[in-house]
Amino acid sequence: MATFVLCQTARAATRRSTAHVRSGACSGHGSGALQCAVLPGTGWFTRGTGVRLMSHGTAGKSAASRVWRRALTLSGAAVVSAAVAGLVANTSHFPRAEMATSIVPVPQEGDIPQEGDILKRCKGFMSPPVTDVNVLQRRKDEMRTRMEMLIMETQAEFCKALEEVDGGKFKVDRWERKEGGGGISCVMQDGNAFEKAGVNVSVVSGNLTEEAARQMRSRGKVLKGKDGKLPFVAMGVSSVIHPKNPHIPTVHFNYRYFEVEEEDGSKQWWFGGGTDLTPVYVNKEDAFHFHKTLKDACDKHHSQHYTDFKKWCDRYFYIRHRGETRGLGGIFFDDLDSPSQEEVFSFVKSCARTVVPCYLPIVRKHMNDSFTQEEKDWQQVRRGRYVEFNLVYDRGVKFGLATPGSRIESILMSLPLTARWEYMHEPAKGTREAEMLEVLRNPREWV
Amino acid sequence: MATFVLCQTARAATRRSTAHVRSGACSGHGSGALQCAVLPGTGWFTRGTGVRLMSHGTAGKSAASRVWRRALTLSGAAVVSAAVAGLVANTSHFPRAEMATSIVPVPQEGDIPQEGDILKRCKGFMSPPVTDVNVLQRRKDEMRTRMEMLIMETQAEFCKALEEVDGGKFKVDRWERKEGGGGISCVMQDGNAFEKAGVNVSVVSGNLTEEAARQMRSRGKVLKGKDGKLPFVAMGVSSVIHPKNPHIPTVHFNYRYFEVEEEDGSKQWWFGGGTDLTPVYVNKEDAFHFHKTLKDACDKHHSQHYTDFKKWCDRYFYIRHRGETRGLGGIFFDDLDSPSQEEVFSFVKSCARTVVPCYLPIVRKHMNDSFTQEEKDWQQVRRGRYVEFNLVYDRGVKFGLATPGSRIESILMSLPLTARWEYMHEPAKGTREAEMLEVLRNPREWV
Repeated sequence: MATFVLCQTARAATRRSTAHVRSGACSGHGSGALQCAVLPGTGWFTRGTGVRLMSHGTAGKSAASRVWRRALTLSGAAVVSAAVAGLVANTSHFPRAEMATSIVPVPQEGDIPQEGDILKRCKGFMSPPVTDVNVLQRRKDEMRTRMEMLIMETQAEFCKALEEVDGGKFKVDRWERKEGGGGISCVMQDGNAFEKAGVNVSVVSGNLTEEAARQMRSRGKVLKGKDGKLPFVAMGVSSVIHPKNPHIPTVHFNYRYFEVEEEDGSKQWWFGGGTDLTPVYVNKEDAFHFHKTLKDACDKHHSQHYTDFKKWCDRYFYIRHRGETRGLGGIFFDDLDSPSQEEVFSFVKSCARTVVPCYLPIVRKHMNDSFTQEEKDWQQVRRGRYVEFNLVYDRGVKFGLATPGSRIESILMSLPLTARWEYMHEPAKGTREAEMLEVLRNPREWV
Repeated sequence: MATFVLCQTARAATRRSTAHVRSGACSGHGSGALQCAVLPGTGWFTRGTGVRLMSHGTAGKSAASRVWRRALTLSGAAVVSAAVAGLVANTSHFPRAEMATSIVPVPQEGDIPQEGDILKRCKGFMSPPVTDVNVLQRRKDEMRTRMEMLIMETQAEFCKALEEVDGGKFKVDRWERKEGGGGISCVMQDGNAFEKAGVNVSVVSGNLTEEAARQMRSRGKVLKGKDGKLPFVAMGVSSVIHPKNPHIPTVHFNYRYFEVEEEDGSKQWWFGGGTDLTPVYVNKEDAFHFHKTLKDACDKHHSQHYTDFKKWCDRYFYIRHRGETRGLGGIFFDDLDSPSQEEVFSFVKSCARTVVPCYLPIVRKHMNDSFTQEEKDWQQVRRGRYVEFNLVYDRGVKFGLATPGSRIESILMSLPLTARWEYMHEPAKGTREAEMLEVLRNPREWV
């Protein structure tokens, strides 16, 4: 219960802040360096007013700093793209309907474990956490610990929900990164319901390379590291689920956190994440359920979050050379560092906890749908597009592949087991395949 | 017969030149701007002397000019990667053994159509050429015409050879490019022997964009176009063949030509190309046959060509994130513009004519090999790697996808019909799959 109480308290204390979002995907908004100054008395949590208090600029930071942050965001995303996921313990205790209507759901006693109860919470994980449990206990109040616990829980809950519906078991791989940290990859391949399901956690730490530092300097920013070193930690949970049945959509999500320490010991931090759906056929009911569940989670934190992050998602998951989005979207955000660490973490937590209620009802609904070979072939063609997006455009994948020492198998876990490329494949007018393409070519509002 | 007579004459007249090769792949050789001055009396065609008279620098051209040329090479390769291939008319009249032993094979009367006999030669093509036949006839002695005829013939001969062995028929698509030129895509999908076979020709022309011009300027080179325009033509034939039987390797080749006109009317031109083999299992006999056939074709032109271009091929077709080459190589070269246009064209012609004798004997040999489901699965995993190379590293594909107006279907024709990604797939020691990986991780000499 502590979690939500804590969040509500934090919210009350910070109802005067704005959220900063920085990224190329929002470049149309300009830099507005001073727009983000604290606006006293302005409710950050102003659901219903329709006023967006989020600025896409940076408060008191130079463009060069943004470039630097962006480079690091990429780097982190790469490392963390080797990550995969689920939902925090006991999510099933929150009926979806309640989540959809309550702005601040009131958790029941015992529903949410105390954040501080590290050992107990670890017992439910797919594997011991990446960081030593004693270390986690020692610094249990630090954000890096709280986030690592969240991503481990997200992985465990999602994996368990998928195992329950599939009947199969995840293969759990722990891996270490020479330079610091490691990860836990859970993969189920060729299950009953899932062709390939990957849920990955990674927690990596170390120092920024000299090369990275040089790049920053050449862009006008001299980063002040301690003895030339810039310690960082990047962590995240990410997942891609490719079901066998073409009537069950593919889902992807990723929630991540970055922290960098400068010379004076001050920490820069930010969060990123998103959840999106890639169906083979349009099912309006599924699309509504998925987007509505996400919107409800967003609305608990800011009335504009869903609108902004839905748009960002459509822009990000765009296969430019095809003129198609990868799927029918969801939410996507990056580089989120305000109004406060507590508020952003609370938002990210809500998103992570929304993964199971977003997806599992759709899986259950279509588990036993019959399908034809033609439908399966169309699914395989859509899988080919998924591969195209991931290998050609996904920033995390691109950066991961270009980074020596990355765990390639975890990065490419997102690729489907099988895919197909047909020359000049164009569905006939009026078919359900053509309907799908139409939606991918012209993103819609679903709620 | 005219072709070879002409080439021999040209050779005799130019036995004092050097070959220039410029590309990042050869960057280890430095620029040596003055090394390439004409060396009177030096045989360019000095087979057996072991002396390489090819310089990797540029004669009298600045580094900036190289950057500019490189950018254009990429651009051209992109446009031309929408291309695909075969062998010049009546290739079957040259027995392979003779090609392998004769330095300058003596063609028989009637074997090679007169280069000038445009109309007659067009009759054997898969489609009328991209350029209007009257235009081709009017400028029949220009290199752009001779190269267009060569790539059309290469396409036709290769398609016919494949149709003969498969029993199926190629689908022929003519397409036009709004900005100038177009192409002819021949695709056979789900044939008897071939899962997907693409043989593409493209001939595109127009003016360099202002953006391209600006990029050049920012790198220190002000290109002087006529009225601000830099007319260019880029053409090529390219092909990727993915057979069904895992004992028949995939083959790829591409031969291309670029021409740019500067303000004073002078033309810059260069050729590029290569042929390489990607088997699913190692077959030393096949590898020897393939490489030996290429080496013989190279040796007719320069004793060092095979060694250099084999190395270049291994470097280019390298999947860095896997630490594997795409296949067991062949030859690859780019930006070749010396010793003379006639000599380089003659070399490219020899290469193009070597495609059928390189590949078809291997197809016929394994056409009826039996195979297991495990072998088929391994083929699908290797196909996945092929997709990874093509989408992540191939310069032509990358540039093509990033270029508005590219014909995506022709660019991505190189992707297999089906592919597979298995998490943590690693063949057991001592298996034929492990043997394949070993060769991909440590490129070998095959002849």
